[in-house]
Amino acid sequence: MGVLVLRPEDHFGLLRFSEGVDLMRAGFEDFARSPVVLSNPRTRTITPEGFRMTVHQGVSPSRRGACTSGRGERVQILPQGQQKYPGRGRPVFSLFDTETANLLMVMIGEPRAKGYEEYFATAGYHTACAAVVGTNMMARPDATRVGLLGSGGQAVMHLAALAETRSISQAVVYSPTPANREKFARDMQANLGFPVKSVQSTDEVLEAAEILLVCTNSNQPVLDGRKLRPGTHITSIVHSNKELLHAGVVKKMRQEIDDETLRRSDLTVTTNMAQEELDQPEVLYGAMQRGVIARDRIREVKDLINGKVSLSGVHARRGITFFKNAAGWGIGAGALFRGFYDRAREAGVGIDLGIDGLETTY
Amino acid sequence: MGVLVLRPEDHFGLLRFSEGVDLMRAGFEDFARSPVVLSNPRTRTITPEGFRMTVHQGVSPSRRGACTSGRGERVQILPQGQQKYPGRGRPVFSLFDTETANLLMVMIGEPRAKGYEEYFATAGYHTACAAVVGTNMMARPDATRVGLLGSGGQAVMHLAALAETRSISQAVVYSPTPANREKFARDMQANLGFPVKSVQSTDEVLEAAEILLVCTNSNQPVLDGRKLRPGTHITSIVHSNKELLHAGVVKKMRQEIDDETLRRSDLTVTTNMAQEELDQPEVLYGAMQRGVIARDRIREVKDLINGKVSLSGVHARRGITFFKNAAGWGIGAGALFRGFYDRAREAGVGIDLGIDGLETTY
Repeated sequence: MGVLVLRPEDHFGLLRFSEGVDLMRAGFEDFARSPVVLSNPRTRTITPEGFRMTVHQGVSPSRRGACTSGRGERVQILPQGQQKYPGRGRPVFSLFDTETANLLMVMIGEPRAKGYEEYFATAGYHTACAAVVGTNMMARPDATRVGLLGSGGQAVMHLAALAETRSISQAVVYSPTPANREKFARDMQANLGFPVKSVQSTDEVLEAAEILLVCTNSNQPVLDGRKLRPGTHITSIVHSNKELLHAGVVKKMRQEIDDETLRRSDLTVTTNMAQEELDQPEVLYGAMQRGVIARDRIREVKDLINGKVSLSGVHARRGITFFKNAAGWGIGAGALFRGFYDRAREAGVGIDLGIDGLETTY
Repeated sequence: MGVLVLRPEDHFGLLRFSEGVDLMRAGFEDFARSPVVLSNPRTRTITPEGFRMTVHQGVSPSRRGACTSGRGERVQILPQGQQKYPGRGRPVFSLFDTETANLLMVMIGEPRAKGYEEYFATAGYHTACAAVVGTNMMARPDATRVGLLGSGGQAVMHLAALAETRSISQAVVYSPTPANREKFARDMQANLGFPVKSVQSTDEVLEAAEILLVCTNSNQPVLDGRKLRPGTHITSIVHSNKELLHAGVVKKMRQEIDDETLRRSDLTVTTNMAQEELDQPEVLYGAMQRGVIARDRIREVKDLINGKVSLSGVHARRGITFFKNAAGWGIGAGALFRGFYDRAREAGVGIDLGIDGLETTY
């Protein structure tokens, strides 16, 4: 077999969300248990004209997958502060076998989960898988009511990934445009088979949610942490736009979550502190610099996996927990794209280039 | 036109070394003149079992090219300390257009220069192009005699790239295995049309060379800096293996150049200090830490381009100059692979996948 090229139509629907979440978790486990660093943080470069390139990378020995990905995009900030992307190049994922170094696959285009092929968000599938790994580890085992702030592609994927990996009884969604949130509620209720309700305010979501997924595209906090109910778990995905700030494209850093939420959080976990330190996002890094949260109160997913942090006490006293999906899931990508490759070979899809994946050796 | 895939046979020989050097220089000029950072350092991850993944990235607005590349390899250290690669995955280069964000090309396999398609070294073509940009800026304009330590693929490419961009009168080569250096001398003399002589010691090379290219695969210093003649320019390519050290694969850091060479150098330039600081190579970073060379005596290529450092005084007093090619040439890759793409389109080679290079936008 030679190097396999997967075009978008070749890889759409090869993996379910539940499979992606398992693979992403395998990556986090490698990260937690390896004696050496197997992933570098996600990095970005941006021009003052608003072109941005994003690179992920990571090596998952347990799944025999090493992956690097790159994508380009044009970034634009609307007057209301939302971040838009008038042009997005298709991402490219290169997969190597960790035992042989063989180049196995080049996969082109955004991965889409089985059953959600028509939904789009940049890095939607893998972001949702990583967020749900953390959410499932942190939210109370008996929490079944989900609240969503945001109704775009990321909200769709986060709810779908959660619903495939945890028992959910209902979901409640708010986003500023009624038509969008109502469509979301209709579509997701039909897809998932439990009630999904569109509501008219953030407060109604906070009132209902045991698990709160914040999946907005906002540059400003979208909730008032004082109104969170005891026992709520919050997962947030908006990270950093430091490079946009440095390049002069935006005037301030993004901040989806308010400081009060962080102050009230009994346990705050991020995917990867190296990523926080590199990107210096307003949440959590900025808040730490401003004294809102102490450095030693921020833990990593690997601390959960290695048992350095326990949730039972926090759950027993109905504490608030907060998970920040900070994009440092390169190892998860190594495992995930190995999963895509294995499934593509089983399905016989893609173009086999007929060239050896190994370069000449000497 | 859709996304273009270039297999090795499609891109071999598309660009000459002289063209690659010009493109690499355009990248360095973007780096020097941009108000923001357009390139992240090269990063690596390695497992204790000796699998290594290497990632480059950079954006060249002047050439409308943004490139990220990834490769995997198996690394092994021989008893004599040489670093070998029992398996090398083909590298993958992904190219985006900086004005539209369009994914233009996925290029698979090590690039090879026109006329040197059969010569192989990892990152050989681009390493040589970057080294020769620095060498041509730093060596005396009237220097025409080249010395080489090393006779492998990197030595071939460095001499070829130099010979295509500067007037050379003769070359002298030493490497430990007589058959290798003699073959090198025969082949290169036939290719380049000037005398290339194999000699029996490093000292004979140092005696003859006005421009010394150190292209070994050594983990130990290969020359005695006390024997360098006044006015010599030295270019070195061995960089860091920090990750191998951390992963326990090697016991000490690589060091191709001795401290005395650095002490005697009147002007020492590296491609990129961020790369030095990230990789902490024995040369230059380790030497700096050990007090051999002061931090403020190490300059970057961009200082030469921006005129912050002048060579005329150094040349007038026949000073020694030293260029460290430290792998921080991601922007050059952006420019270089745009060059490959444009030439491939002219030549009509490769597989056009027929898919749009832009992902859905929203």
